[in-house]
Amino acid sequence: MGLINFCTQCGSEIKQEIPQGDDRERDVCSKCGFIHYFNPRLVVGTIPIWEDRILLVRRAIEPCYGKWTLPAGYLENGESVLDGALRETREEAHARIENLKSFALFNMTQINQIYYMFYGQLSDTDFKAGSESLEVKLVREKDIPWDDIAFKVIRITLERFFEDRSKGSFDYHMEDIFFERSIKYRS
Amino acid sequence: MGLINFCTQCGSEIKQEIPQGDDRERDVCSKCGFIHYFNPRLVVGTIPIWEDRILLVRRAIEPCYGKWTLPAGYLENGESVLDGALRETREEAHARIENLKSFALFNMTQINQIYYMFYGQLSDTDFKAGSESLEVKLVREKDIPWDDIAFKVIRITLERFFEDRSKGSFDYHMEDIFFERSIKYRS
Repeated sequence: MGLINFCTQCGSEIKQEIPQGDDRERDVCSKCGFIHYFNPRLVVGTIPIWEDRILLVRRAIEPCYGKWTLPAGYLENGESVLDGALRETREEAHARIENLKSFALFNMTQINQIYYMFYGQLSDTDFKAGSESLEVKLVREKDIPWDDIAFKVIRITLERFFEDRSKGSFDYHMEDIFFERSIKYRS
Repeated sequence: MGLINFCTQCGSEIKQEIPQGDDRERDVCSKCGFIHYFNPRLVVGTIPIWEDRILLVRRAIEPCYGKWTLPAGYLENGESVLDGALRETREEAHARIENLKSFALFNMTQINQIYYMFYGQLSDTDFKAGSESLEVKLVREKDIPWDDIAFKVIRITLERFFEDRSKGSFDYHMEDIFFERSIKYRS
């Protein structure tokens, strides 16, 4: 079972085969022979900090409509991971952040996503909900809505952040995150 | 000018348009409306270390046939960045490495690639050229063939590594790398 049905170059049907010199099945055009490669996508995001609070965003879109998350989204072609993270923070929370540092890389191999999270200081508190957000607010650790966090990767990001903050030093984390039930995904 | 000609789902022609709620042109199917997203690809690799030497690989494929590089290649679906880096090291140099640490992330926005490099200790010296390599060897800093390194990103990786080693501590680096002339690329 391939990921696509038709060739992106000539529109003919796709077959699955192992190209010469390769070691796994690819989606290959039955007519022109073009080989289609699909690779994990990078999701980039931030933990925006203001004094003892961090900025959370309430989702206005599915999946997880109404749940809380951090600003994050797919890295676009032509962007650095830092620029992508800043853009997502601007789009989802109209927020500007400074002095960004790498915080964590999470491998989510079941859905072919790699999350790359930064933390940084908000430049000001002049933020507001973007078009994909219902609400944006600054939250203290004791007020984090743990039962209403949108995604496991965001919950773990927040846990690691508060763990590091409580010990007074921030590490760079790398972890694999798995779902209990595997999720169907088309790349 | 889009990246593809035909829809991967139904095989109809592609048009470029900005989908509702989006802010940039995508390759959208003129018939079924399927939106095709293209994102940067991750390249993962390693600096394999043996005492005061590191392992270099001489390329048996284009581009840069005959030039020297480090084991590295595209991250595959279903892989963590660490597993991908270990696989590339095994495939290109039949080498096993241990105790890997994150070394650098390089943004190459002109070609929509993100390089993620580790360093680690070779488990043994029982390595040999893989099918995409002409030759594999351990090299001291003074013997690095600087004029015959395959890619700018690999040259910079090596420079940062030896700089860090000479000061006795390894940082985690993040840099943007640009080519002098822009390179055409189809994602």
